[in-house]
Amino acid sequence: MSDLFQNKNFTPLSELGEFGLIEKIQSSVQIYNSETIKGIGDDAAVIEKNDTYYTLVSTDILIEGIHFDLIYTPLKHLGYKAVAVNLSDICAMNGFPKQILVSIAVSNRFTVEAIEELYKGILLACDKYKVDLVGGDTSTIHKGMVISVTAIGEVEKEKIVYRNGAKEKDLIVVTGDLGGAYMGLQILEREKAVFLENPKIQPDLEGNDYILERQLKPEARKDIIEEFRRLEIQPSSMIDISDGLASEILHICKQSNVGCEIYEEKIPIDPQTYDRARQFIIDPTTCAMNGGEDYELLFTLPLKDYDKIKNHPDFTVIGYITEPAKKCHLITKSGTVHPITAQGWKHF
Amino acid sequence: MSDLFQNKNFTPLSELGEFGLIEKIQSSVQIYNSETIKGIGDDAAVIEKNDTYYTLVSTDILIEGIHFDLIYTPLKHLGYKAVAVNLSDICAMNGFPKQILVSIAVSNRFTVEAIEELYKGILLACDKYKVDLVGGDTSTIHKGMVISVTAIGEVEKEKIVYRNGAKEKDLIVVTGDLGGAYMGLQILEREKAVFLENPKIQPDLEGNDYILERQLKPEARKDIIEEFRRLEIQPSSMIDISDGLASEILHICKQSNVGCEIYEEKIPIDPQTYDRARQFIIDPTTCAMNGGEDYELLFTLPLKDYDKIKNHPDFTVIGYITEPAKKCHLITKSGTVHPITAQGWKHF
Repeated sequence: MSDLFQNKNFTPLSELGEFGLIEKIQSSVQIYNSETIKGIGDDAAVIEKNDTYYTLVSTDILIEGIHFDLIYTPLKHLGYKAVAVNLSDICAMNGFPKQILVSIAVSNRFTVEAIEELYKGILLACDKYKVDLVGGDTSTIHKGMVISVTAIGEVEKEKIVYRNGAKEKDLIVVTGDLGGAYMGLQILEREKAVFLENPKIQPDLEGNDYILERQLKPEARKDIIEEFRRLEIQPSSMIDISDGLASEILHICKQSNVGCEIYEEKIPIDPQTYDRARQFIIDPTTCAMNGGEDYELLFTLPLKDYDKIKNHPDFTVIGYITEPAKKCHLITKSGTVHPITAQGWKHF
Repeated sequence: MSDLFQNKNFTPLSELGEFGLIEKIQSSVQIYNSETIKGIGDDAAVIEKNDTYYTLVSTDILIEGIHFDLIYTPLKHLGYKAVAVNLSDICAMNGFPKQILVSIAVSNRFTVEAIEELYKGILLACDKYKVDLVGGDTSTIHKGMVISVTAIGEVEKEKIVYRNGAKEKDLIVVTGDLGGAYMGLQILEREKAVFLENPKIQPDLEGNDYILERQLKPEARKDIIEEFRRLEIQPSSMIDISDGLASEILHICKQSNVGCEIYEEKIPIDPQTYDRARQFIIDPTTCAMNGGEDYELLFTLPLKDYDKIKNHPDFTVIGYITEPAKKCHLITKSGTVHPITAQGWKHF
């Protein structure tokens, strides 16, 4: 098979990109079971459960050196985050997570005590979100650590929300604030560089609590899904923000076949995120648009429901859906119009 | 966290072993949802689905250099096998697989064409078993390849079979034959060694078709689950043989709190497996007991059902369940009695 490996006659994965690869796979998939309601292409797969509910399933793989750096990530935090980011995908379908399976592959550099720390974080997330760890697999690997998490949840059939339901004139809403996780990562990377140069210097993390927590211990917004039920809010489309606002709104608009206008001045950014971005000479809006890992929810809502969310501290209206021909644009604070392009994480 | 890594004050994972680690994790797990029927500790997790069915979920992680060697494993076969071994876990609960999620992490050594080969195998298995590929994740990794597969299935509630239901005097039955996958691996490892010494020598694989296929393209015994329904057979306990007969019967006996006697002369071994084992100066019974990767089903059956399976070409009775005090024994062809100990794959 060696002729299929790196060779000038073949296509490097970087040329196709992650989304290109997924589209290629998706196009060759065939569905055999009528109980499979929705396969590849949303935050979670949707499977028939019973008269009232669908089952939701989502999976993520996390690789040391790609998705996390153990120099500054405590193993307990890593375990917590690995679970939270998966549960976030279930929430993004307007569902509630119920069970997880966790597989790990670790090199012999890890001790029993290290793996116990990782599982303390995993089980802390299970307790916080009331999900059950029901299975997994363990293996050795020559180098590094790999964590694969599968989350299972459920959603009332009439409440399921896909990426493709956004309609013209719908409001575009985000929860919480954006860009913090990215700025937290910049702080950690800076302190890592200092440490590698001189291991005797103590890391300077003061005054960065909020953004460090956004990076190291993100939460799945299960509380928002509960709030939707309480306020009788039914989003027309939804996605979680793992790759940055730009990438996610493009997913919604592409799959819903609509355009959008987003107002820079409306994008919620925490003061700490804003200050640190300025200090690092990074545009705070860029952090929010392309930073990723905030795990907030991005959803669209019919205009008639505006009263249900206005003045709610968790929700910010940042724009609205337009006809497809209008494409996707960011209206800057100075009033200029920029096309939105995805610059989220491209692993390949 | 570096003090939790390899350090003489801490416990190396090898000291605990894979099963020890799983037991440690299992003991700290708490279940919050009444819909979680069975968590860690069987071939698949069991979740409430509807009045008639349970949902089954199982996951495996496969690591290059640990579980597969791309020098002699075609990527298409690898994709097929990665799916089949997961579906086997669903079958081991007496259930039918319906959906899978596949995550891959690959280094930049892999081209688009290589990944397409892998997915051809994955989709071939989907077609063969009529399961739907409904999701997954893709990532890069610094070195090698990791494949994580999650299988989802269902089983009629009254037909579910756990590992812990074996009763005294039950028959112990296996499907197909054992040890072939292990001998196939020996052939491939021999030819790899020859190739590494002199890449010009063509591999000598002739006359080994059956055992090579057992290693490279194992099947999940979904056909047996269908046969159980047709013959109205309800095993009292069941497991799939991934780590070797010894390890699996010990799981059944430990979880059922029983002992067993297995007769060496009854263990089904294919003539090709037998011949090659002799040629390699390996005891063929050792291949069957400790070789692993055959993915046949091992189950127990009340004595009264013997008529349903006798003379059936797929089933071989190899022994019977005893009271717990008798422990687990192998009765050799010469009539001597050996305690059965697990020597299956210990990754750590």
